Amino acid sequence: MKLLSFNYNNQVRFGLKVKKEEAVWDVLAIQEQLAVLPEFPQTMVEGVAKGLDFVEQIRKLVEAASKDENPEQFKRAFTDITWLAPIPRTPKNVICVGKNYADHAAEMGGVAPEDLIVFTKSPLSIAADEETLPLHADKTDSLDYEGELAIVIGKGGKDIPKSLAYDYVFGYTIANDISARDVQYRHQQFFLGKSLEGTCPLGPYLVTKDELPDPHALTIVTKVNDQIRQNASTKDMLFKVDTLISTISQYVTLEPGDVILTGTPAGVGKGMTPPTFLKSGDVVKVSVEGIGTLVNRF
Amino acid sequence: MKLLSFNYNNQVRFGLKVKKEEAVWDVLAIQEQLAVLPEFPQTMVEGVAKGLDFVEQIRKLVEAASKDENPEQFKRAFTDITWLAPIPRTPKNVICVGKNYADHAAEMGGVAPEDLIVFTKSPLSIAADEETLPLHADKTDSLDYEGELAIVIGKGGKDIPKSLAYDYVFGYTIANDISARDVQYRHQQFFLGKSLEGTCPLGPYLVTKDELPDPHALTIVTKVNDQIRQNASTKDMLFKVDTLISTISQYVTLEPGDVILTGTPAGVGKGMTPPTFLKSGDVVKVSVEGIGTLVNRF
Repeated sequence: MKLLSFNYNNQVRFGLKVKKEEAVWDVLAIQEQLAVLPEFPQTMVEGVAKGLDFVEQIRKLVEAASKDENPEQFKRAFTDITWLAPIPRTPKNVICVGKNYADHAAEMGGVAPEDLIVFTKSPLSIAADEETLPLHADKTDSLDYEGELAIVIGKGGKDIPKSLAYDYVFGYTIANDISARDVQYRHQQFFLGKSLEGTCPLGPYLVTKDELPDPHALTIVTKVNDQIRQNASTKDMLFKVDTLISTISQYVTLEPGDVILTGTPAGVGKGMTPPTFLKSGDVVKVSVEGIGTLVNRF
Repeated sequence: MKLLSFNYNNQVRFGLKVKKEEAVWDVLAIQEQLAVLPEFPQTMVEGVAKGLDFVEQIRKLVEAASKDENPEQFKRAFTDITWLAPIPRTPKNVICVGKNYADHAAEMGGVAPEDLIVFTKSPLSIAADEETLPLHADKTDSLDYEGELAIVIGKGGKDIPKSLAYDYVFGYTIANDISARDVQYRHQQFFLGKSLEGTCPLGPYLVTKDELPDPHALTIVTKVNDQIRQNASTKDMLFKVDTLISTISQYVTLEPGDVILTGTPAGVGKGMTPPTFLKSGDVVKVSVEGIGTLVNRF
């Protein structure tokens, strides 16, 4: 199931992509008009907290709409909506994993870490697919992309055993962990250099976990102006999704709607010779197999 | 004005300390019963967003209650409430400054940083004054205290000039930035080692900025079992409150209710010979002049 959040008539909505159409089922509108369900979440975060029940509810809503005499009234064409990040605001900072691919650790002049490196980005750094993003040229001369697979947490929890970790995953999306390299290193801890507004585009879709039974069999490709910069497989993550959730939840209580960025493979701008950072007009596309392509212009 | 948050009859409330009494004015109860104001914030975070207007509203409520024929009905004795952190949940992670006193940087085996070090703690690490806190002995063998002055942001903003920084301060409280030293260093970035539940007690009071016109003239003392461990002045901060707000807000948009911990002076357990960490039964008291004493037992 491919879910998305969007703005329509100045309202934050969410819905299910219409199969084979460039449109979304406006599930809140279906529920408002047809009253299919006794109750239904009003936000995506409330929804993911319910896990598979939310998926089942959406299925029922779309089924009811499809049988309506005028199903088109519940569809919003992509040309009529503004995309939002699937989770427009996380309940706490976005949780990020550093150096989780050996070849990226090497290009950054380091070694593969023995233990997880975890830092955060401000939730106000979250941006949407297709959004034009600022270069923040007054604050950084080295803005860089990092294409990543992102985990969206459904059920919250702590001390989650590795064997149950996938029970806490609602689904996956794509992230670009945009980083101000000079700020990131000048201030030692990464938080400031990772938190500028517009440096965490997420999307386009939140794909439910049933569609991606193995999150470690996905190709991930990042292009800048259609030149391939990153081309890897999620099988090469040093710490896998179950280990990430288990280890992080030992120290940080996870909540519905929390987003964990799983790290970037080799090929970032800082690793190039010479280092090549983002500039005005650049278009960055991050594609993850089974999810889609996250596109942002600078 | 000394404000506090508390739990009374299983409800989250906030109010003003009653002068010379061990009690709090339940300002929500005053407004509910006497309808003094056309509208009034329902939470402390909504309140601090209004800045001085909130202070003025509380003043009017307490004045009305004092003139009521039975003012006692609006007071809650400290023996009848459970204290909460003044800001029970921050809108994003708690923002923390590292190595902001030269002598602490030295005892940690480092040097005074040229640029601000900023990391975060999960908002779920926030705890209250008088709360008994977990040692997390299954996860760390080196839990350590860090007494700190904490800034509570009122008006939100970004790119705040140093000269206007204090306009964005609502007030101050006391924090103990409890740190799992082994986790903090094992994982390189500090987030995991700083985010365990109960490792960010805040309180007891949120003191409005008018009562602390110079936040750099305050004595800060931390005691463990009544032995003085930290004894310093906030005048020795390397980066002062206005610089902290100005620099952080260049990269991170600040919101009402955000809390910035300003760093700890020398005297933490890790800096002792031999290093001495928290153990069962320890009582840690952090006092900041003009605010009070934050007390927690482990």
